Amino acid sequence: MRRAIGEFELIARFTRALPLRGEGVLLGVGDDAAVLAPPRGEALCATVDAVVEGVHFDRRYAPADVGWKALAVNLSDLAAMGARPLWALVALAFPRGTPPSRLTGVARGLGACARRYGVALVGGNVSRAGELSVTVTAVGAARRGELLTRAGARPGDLLLASGTFGEAALGLLPGAPPAFVRRQRRPLPRLALGRALARIASAAIDVSDGLVQDLGHLCAASGVGATVAVADVPVSPRCRARARALADPDRPALAGGEDYELLVAVPPRRLAAARAAAREAGTPLAVIGRLERGRRVRLLDRDGRERPAPDGHDHLRAPRALTSPGGGLGSPKRGGRGPIER
Amino acid sequence: MRRAIGEFELIARFTRALPLRGEGVLLGVGDDAAVLAPPRGEALCATVDAVVEGVHFDRRYAPADVGWKALAVNLSDLAAMGARPLWALVALAFPRGTPPSRLTGVARGLGACARRYGVALVGGNVSRAGELSVTVTAVGAARRGELLTRAGARPGDLLLASGTFGEAALGLLPGAPPAFVRRQRRPLPRLALGRALARIASAAIDVSDGLVQDLGHLCAASGVGATVAVADVPVSPRCRARARALADPDRPALAGGEDYELLVAVPPRRLAAARAAAREAGTPLAVIGRLERGRRVRLLDRDGRERPAPDGHDHLRAPRALTSPGGGLGSPKRGGRGPIER
Repeated sequence: MRRAIGEFELIARFTRALPLRGEGVLLGVGDDAAVLAPPRGEALCATVDAVVEGVHFDRRYAPADVGWKALAVNLSDLAAMGARPLWALVALAFPRGTPPSRLTGVARGLGACARRYGVALVGGNVSRAGELSVTVTAVGAARRGELLTRAGARPGDLLLASGTFGEAALGLLPGAPPAFVRRQRRPLPRLALGRALARIASAAIDVSDGLVQDLGHLCAASGVGATVAVADVPVSPRCRARARALADPDRPALAGGEDYELLVAVPPRRLAAARAAAREAGTPLAVIGRLERGRRVRLLDRDGRERPAPDGHDHLRAPRALTSPGGGLGSPKRGGRGPIER
Repeated sequence: MRRAIGEFELIARFTRALPLRGEGVLLGVGDDAAVLAPPRGEALCATVDAVVEGVHFDRRYAPADVGWKALAVNLSDLAAMGARPLWALVALAFPRGTPPSRLTGVARGLGACARRYGVALVGGNVSRAGELSVTVTAVGAARRGELLTRAGARPGDLLLASGTFGEAALGLLPGAPPAFVRRQRRPLPRLALGRALARIASAAIDVSDGLVQDLGHLCAASGVGATVAVADVPVSPRCRARARALADPDRPALAGGEDYELLVAVPPRRLAAARAAAREAGTPLAVIGRLERGRRVRLLDRDGRERPAPDGHDHLRAPRALTSPGGGLGSPKRGGRGPIER
């Protein structure tokens, strides 16, 4: 099996950088499949996302950034469900002649993100391809009845947003400050907040494609409309300063995407509980609008006038140089789907 | 959201061809993550494999073949664990300008395979890439204590092989008979056999990289050696006839790969039970050798003399025009790992 050294040596180096054990891992990588013990009495959440060179990242990304982001964007999906992450499976594809150091760099970033959020890497695959890509399937768990979906928002609910918006999109521009670049390349999934809000919020979604577009998905799934007060969307002072030069200074926050913040709907009587949960999770949480009857998402500017929505985001048309990895097989047009069985 | 029609319309067409409901699917595609109820008292098995254009398939494959194979190779891994399949997540990547009919063809093949084996598609992702690829994560379940791994074989166990070997590899050659081409493009995972043998066999592996190489992985994981009587390896008469023209007529069966048959170790006292289980599963099962002390895999020719092993298979070096998708993050060198916790 002399010929196999290339592959097996690479795999050995790759897996060395990854946490391979964790809760419920009865048998990890190395057999035909991992064997996993699901936590008793809990439901599982599963999601898959890919990051592809030239589409979601480019040569400016350090390999470790690619690995981090590939996992983090999946964990952001679990955060939006109120789940705690457990396991990930990774499919790595790369061209012939890729330096091993690039691949071990990807593994280091994956490993750092996995360790930070307590995820065990339980499966993997390597393959040749035309460009580097990392496809991650992440699995989490939550008690049944405590899961958040996009579909539970009701007219009258308040719309809340975590953290700040716009920096990740500006992090793609030449000369962006290092902090914006970091938001773009090393997103921090709001897992603690998602779990803290799981029994409080009526619906949630994470913002990968842009606040307005993802809010549209939440509204469609819940069968509601929304009004957002643009001035209340949280934007850092340095982001606001940078965005002032743009034709539409609100565009990065409203449509930039890749913020990996949470949008949550909360009945007004639970607002205090939501604020307390956010404090406990150490995450800012701001009221930015309200869910309403109807289907429209309306944006009100500082004078209370309705403003048009910035263009949305299409993973396949890639209107930007790089695009967010959140191209899920979601079906935002199938609104009004009922709540999950419990 | 006018710009988003391309992506969402494509997703709608793609998901229409797929079974989206099934056992334990509380909430399927369309939210941030699927919500799944693991079967009570069972362990889960999870595995990931990718098929990439130009690496694992080419333009001779119908799109539906690509979709079928992407799922089937993962189900073969679950078969080798003795698990029944439940759920799959699919990451689809393709170049700009890919005809929608090609993608719906992939979906049809995926859907046909999923329906045949009772799998629900519970998550997905679409992304641009340089070439068409389909990355599937499959999840199955089995009662704890009834799972097969590569690691349980003991010296003295008999080595059994399902079905026949060699046709899939010959199916890659120009002018191959349609039946061989079908073996190559539409593999049939041995799920019924795997489950039937789960309480009988001591170890199992599915053959994606070639009989000798995958037997080597089983031996390394179990800390045993093996002797195979080449004449006993099951080969169809038409495959034997075709292979006669080759420099090494046994090479397709021993090292061709992509047979997606099972190799299982069975203690001699359980041979009758194994044969009965195979009859019940409707799958031929032949004794082809024996597990032994030591670490070596020896091949005995028809005269009882040892013959050299054909070259193995390396997913990254791609010694053939196309390569098998089984490039798992396995670690065949870590032999002697104990049985899984139970």
